[in-house]
Amino acid sequence: MGNIVIIGGMAAGCKVASRLSRLLRGHKIIVIEKMPFVSMNSCGLLPFVAGEIDDVSDLMRTSYNVLRDEKYFDSVRNVNVLTKTEACEIDTRKRELVCRAIDSGDKFRLPYDSLVIATGFQPVKPEFSLRDSTLISSFHYLSDAQKFREKVQHGAISKVVIIGGGIKGCSLAEALVTLWGIDVALIEREENLLPVLLDREIAYYIQSSIKSGKLDLILSSSIEKIEDDKRGSLNVCLQNGESILADYVFCCTGVKPSTDLARGANIQTGVTGGIIVDEKMRTSVEHVWAAGSCVELTNMVTGQGDYFPSNPLSIRMGRVAADSILGRESSLKGTVRPFSLKLFDKFICGAGLTERYARKFGLNVGSVVGCWSDGADYYRDSKPIIAKLVYEKPGLRLLGLQMAGEKDLTRYIDLFSELLSRRRTVECLLQVELASSPGCGASDILLNHLGTMAINQELDGVKNVSPVDAMSFKGTFIDVREPHERTDHPFSNSCIGIPMSDLRTRLNDFNSNQEIIFVCGMGSRGYEAARMFLNHGYKRVSYLGGGILLYDAVRVENFKRLNRTNG
Amino acid sequence: MGNIVIIGGMAAGCKVASRLSRLLRGHKIIVIEKMPFVSMNSCGLLPFVAGEIDDVSDLMRTSYNVLRDEKYFDSVRNVNVLTKTEACEIDTRKRELVCRAIDSGDKFRLPYDSLVIATGFQPVKPEFSLRDSTLISSFHYLSDAQKFREKVQHGAISKVVIIGGGIKGCSLAEALVTLWGIDVALIEREENLLPVLLDREIAYYIQSSIKSGKLDLILSSSIEKIEDDKRGSLNVCLQNGESILADYVFCCTGVKPSTDLARGANIQTGVTGGIIVDEKMRTSVEHVWAAGSCVELTNMVTGQGDYFPSNPLSIRMGRVAADSILGRESSLKGTVRPFSLKLFDKFICGAGLTERYARKFGLNVGSVVGCWSDGADYYRDSKPIIAKLVYEKPGLRLLGLQMAGEKDLTRYIDLFSELLSRRRTVECLLQVELASSPGCGASDILLNHLGTMAINQELDGVKNVSPVDAMSFKGTFIDVREPHERTDHPFSNSCIGIPMSDLRTRLNDFNSNQEIIFVCGMGSRGYEAARMFLNHGYKRVSYLGGGILLYDAVRVENFKRLNRTNG
Repeated sequence: MGNIVIIGGMAAGCKVASRLSRLLRGHKIIVIEKMPFVSMNSCGLLPFVAGEIDDVSDLMRTSYNVLRDEKYFDSVRNVNVLTKTEACEIDTRKRELVCRAIDSGDKFRLPYDSLVIATGFQPVKPEFSLRDSTLISSFHYLSDAQKFREKVQHGAISKVVIIGGGIKGCSLAEALVTLWGIDVALIEREENLLPVLLDREIAYYIQSSIKSGKLDLILSSSIEKIEDDKRGSLNVCLQNGESILADYVFCCTGVKPSTDLARGANIQTGVTGGIIVDEKMRTSVEHVWAAGSCVELTNMVTGQGDYFPSNPLSIRMGRVAADSILGRESSLKGTVRPFSLKLFDKFICGAGLTERYARKFGLNVGSVVGCWSDGADYYRDSKPIIAKLVYEKPGLRLLGLQMAGEKDLTRYIDLFSELLSRRRTVECLLQVELASSPGCGASDILLNHLGTMAINQELDGVKNVSPVDAMSFKGTFIDVREPHERTDHPFSNSCIGIPMSDLRTRLNDFNSNQEIIFVCGMGSRGYEAARMFLNHGYKRVSYLGGGILLYDAVRVENFKRLNRTNG
Repeated sequence: MGNIVIIGGMAAGCKVASRLSRLLRGHKIIVIEKMPFVSMNSCGLLPFVAGEIDDVSDLMRTSYNVLRDEKYFDSVRNVNVLTKTEACEIDTRKRELVCRAIDSGDKFRLPYDSLVIATGFQPVKPEFSLRDSTLISSFHYLSDAQKFREKVQHGAISKVVIIGGGIKGCSLAEALVTLWGIDVALIEREENLLPVLLDREIAYYIQSSIKSGKLDLILSSSIEKIEDDKRGSLNVCLQNGESILADYVFCCTGVKPSTDLARGANIQTGVTGGIIVDEKMRTSVEHVWAAGSCVELTNMVTGQGDYFPSNPLSIRMGRVAADSILGRESSLKGTVRPFSLKLFDKFICGAGLTERYARKFGLNVGSVVGCWSDGADYYRDSKPIIAKLVYEKPGLRLLGLQMAGEKDLTRYIDLFSELLSRRRTVECLLQVELASSPGCGASDILLNHLGTMAINQELDGVKNVSPVDAMSFKGTFIDVREPHERTDHPFSNSCIGIPMSDLRTRLNDFNSNQEIIFVCGMGSRGYEAARMFLNHGYKRVSYLGGGILLYDAVRVENFKRLNRTNG
């Protein structure tokens, strides 16, 4: 194999180096890293900023507390790590990497037999103009975290503006509010949080559950500019004319692959800007591999290039790249974008496409939304799980799933991801066998249920109406809950109340062409009612997906949105 | 369809009735149930006995708190439920069911066009002789729970013996100890708890973590007899001569399908005693379906008949039976036995075959055991996850997975079950994409890791040694942890200590035919060391799976077992 040179000493690069060193004898492996450290777990920036971790070096230690530094890589792995060294140019003809020692400025050339590009990602520059300021940063580099943390520890910060309501922005907002007690304004351009990952039904449900008075969600809002305020703070000006004072501004406006070096060497990049690789992590140029967050992967749902930086994927890509260099069987076919996070007491997860994205992509999309208890019915303190399933109408191929609840829901997403990656259909959801866990009730057949709902809708015509669509419904709502439920928690003044137990006696009371949505607490009785009326010859009946529980959340957030839009 | 008669009004029977009633018009659906109630969630017996639920009727209520009684089924579902009615005989020729009203003793015949048998399961009678006593019961019927709860509320019970260390026995033991503060002796015939579900490595790990002084685990022990004690208690006599005083004895010695009625009608039953059905829940007799815990399903790993009563399966079978009666597309192909439970602060889950069972079944079996942190390395309070993967050696087909940890691990089992049901190989584990969750570290690629370990073992010869096998290892142990780790937590007096950072300098210090097991804290360094020595030409090196963490648990439990066996 001769010389193997790896550019980038974070997750992917270190994985390539470690795997190669395990499989090889009498080799030379060199890792080039710009930073003064290697193998930092960047997920740890959040707990560091939040004050849960005090020592930055903890982010570079093994589980048995040994620092993964140059010495460690040398003695344990026989890998030569050059930190504070920049890769300047890839000479693919001569197979040499031009490097520069950052401290001395000295340039040198490293010959390679195999080269791995693991240059990672960098923050996207926001659209508005952004001056250099000690009070503004991205939330990406260790230096960002250190800069902020120093200020916050000196009590210099009582109000922060976070721009961007993606995973990073949301997680940061929660940490600052919860752990430092700081007032936070979180500004998102789109009309809901996590807009790339969630449709409105699920995002609204999460938004409506955020009760902290210290967090101000400012949605559907763009930044005009950020000015210095006279008192040494910043003034964040929105395009609608509002402005917000802040002691610090974090720009969490997304990341993009770092590919200057690759593009300089005419290595092909894709629609997302990431380096194009095959299933074995080979780039378009011979002897050059790529791995990690500089890579564009295939989205296994759309079949198109996609960009989904994640630590697990970086590590898996690193392994495949190393195996591939050695000619071993190993491959990575792509991603279905599964994610999971906890935010404001809600567990949120998803995979595949949102309905919004699938429609933009030009697919003919169907969807159902539902609500379940996360414990057996006899546990009166069970909490709701909200889910939205997205599928392609002809053929019923699965496209995506989004969920929120108060327990960890990763089990559903992990299994669903496997189905997505195999291009399975809604019918397959009926066949999956989830683990049976005593006391869990309906949640143990939740995926089967979601499949049933979609089948009921597509094959039997029992239509599931999203609460977002129900907001603008002009027909008749029939509330089939028990009288005491209707009194305790009314749905709407204009709806008709008929409890399930009486419904059968009222089958002839309506016009069979009347548009009716049946509503209940969480959706199951509404479904049953709609089915009963359909069987009786009604043509235009449907039920409210997720019931009043989800509808209420959507109504509240919709109201806020309209208020904001109308000034 | 005409008349549809369903025997049994619990999970499966009620599901059949409800699904049919939703799909049909102008039908007659009759449910026959022996008990004075229907649609009881039997999972709720445990929280009822434990005192978490006070009102038994909570087990028969919908999530919106409506009692699922005869009236409910009549008005909401148009289903006629006959409680306190016994099905005595199926006349398959005349298509009639002979019934008996239990109160009056009156017999009557119900003609059917379609018949569904959903007679559920019943406790297995223990092998030892068991007299009728108000102080002995199974833990199966509502009456068992009521009988015990009445006594315990009157303070009449301070010591309970539970016979059988399966899920039911273990869960009950925990509830009595934790919630009532009762002293419990849990007696299991096999040498570990949950012997049908777990191999020793995982079971021992769980056993060793049980710290309650109120729970006495008595393993490898059988009951001789149960005698009355003079003071009104019971005396539970073991075959080894020991005896234990108890105020109450629960027999949790397993369940079996209730099939007297089916067998009386010459409906075919299988190796497990359950009713044989096809994928559409049709029995061997025309016009007769079966669903729920009276049914034998196909084990999708072995391809043989299997018996795995579970609520989710009962409900899914109920749906399929109803669809099948109506000629709709719907099927259930079998089970891979996925389970999940929480016991003594440990989450335990598994699916497929244990190694013990797979060997008995005659398969050529390989396995790996491993240990991971359930949080990122920078969280110093992360807890271990223990896992054992079982596969078939030629072809590397997946056979089973068992896990234990302090967080819910269902995500792994749900996904693994899907792979099992599709007869996937170890290589597929490398392809699965688990959700990426910030702060979760290695646990987000745990299944990929397990696959890697098995591949490393089978294709590269890096052997993973189970701590159970390592107990009897006579070769050299090399402990590759750091000196301070070895001092804090020594492995064994006779082992050689060489930290990873020095190992490369010691590659020539041993005989290349020497048998060596490399040990470390959780297994990863041991693997790396073994790989290094293999690359250097050593032939008989391996590493300790799960590291010292798991080994210690196995050692403790093994010591207890030997002590017990040797008296």
